[in-house]
Amino acid sequence: MPPSLPVPPYWTVIFSTQRSPAEQGYAEMAERMMRLASVQPGFLGVESSRDENGFGITVSYWDSVEAIATWRHHAEHMVAQRFGCEAWYQAFSLKVARVERAHDFPNLTDDEPGPG
Amino acid sequence: MPPSLPVPPYWTVIFSTQRSPAEQGYAEMAERMMRLASVQPGFLGVESSRDENGFGITVSYWDSVEAIATWRHHAEHMVAQRFGCEAWYQAFSLKVARVERAHDFPNLTDDEPGPG
Repeated sequence: MPPSLPVPPYWTVIFSTQRSPAEQGYAEMAERMMRLASVQPGFLGVESSRDENGFGITVSYWDSVEAIATWRHHAEHMVAQRFGCEAWYQAFSLKVARVERAHDFPNLTDDEPGPG
Repeated sequence: MPPSLPVPPYWTVIFSTQRSPAEQGYAEMAERMMRLASVQPGFLGVESSRDENGFGITVSYWDSVEAIATWRHHAEHMVAQRFGCEAWYQAFSLKVARVERAHDFPNLTDDEPGPG
């Protein structure tokens, strides 16, 4: 389920990855990074999906760019980033974006009028 | 694979959905919407992943908020949106965000210096 989030604006990191066949502790790392991220200052939530071809998208939400920068430079996270390039991922893309509008269903906590 | 995109800034729509068990033409609609979106003015690219539990994230990229608004109000797309709420999705969240920074691997088209 999508995480419950405050009214925008807030920040997001969109992390798309194509897994390589190598396992080598990937699952443990992914779980540990998720747990570590969730206790960082400014963390708001995360959602993630990976399909049967190994293509995945993880979207994390943060209250500021500073919180994202701090997480990016977290020592243990940097080790995972480095190893990710070398072993776990064939390709990835990472985007930092500012969320301006959000709405959801069935929560209906729209922050904007609907169409029409 | 993540789509090839211009240097930021540009805009993104993050669409997270939990599928319901109902099929009822979902695959055809999803494919048709992907095809329709890709020929809209201002469309830059899309990436999508859905896991074995039916949770999916689709991230589309656009050159302006106006392009997103136009696509949102596209007649055929509005029918799909309406039917999505009623049949295909148990839950969804939709976020519009402005991408400020992007980098990728192995393309190494970073628009910012790396850490350290």
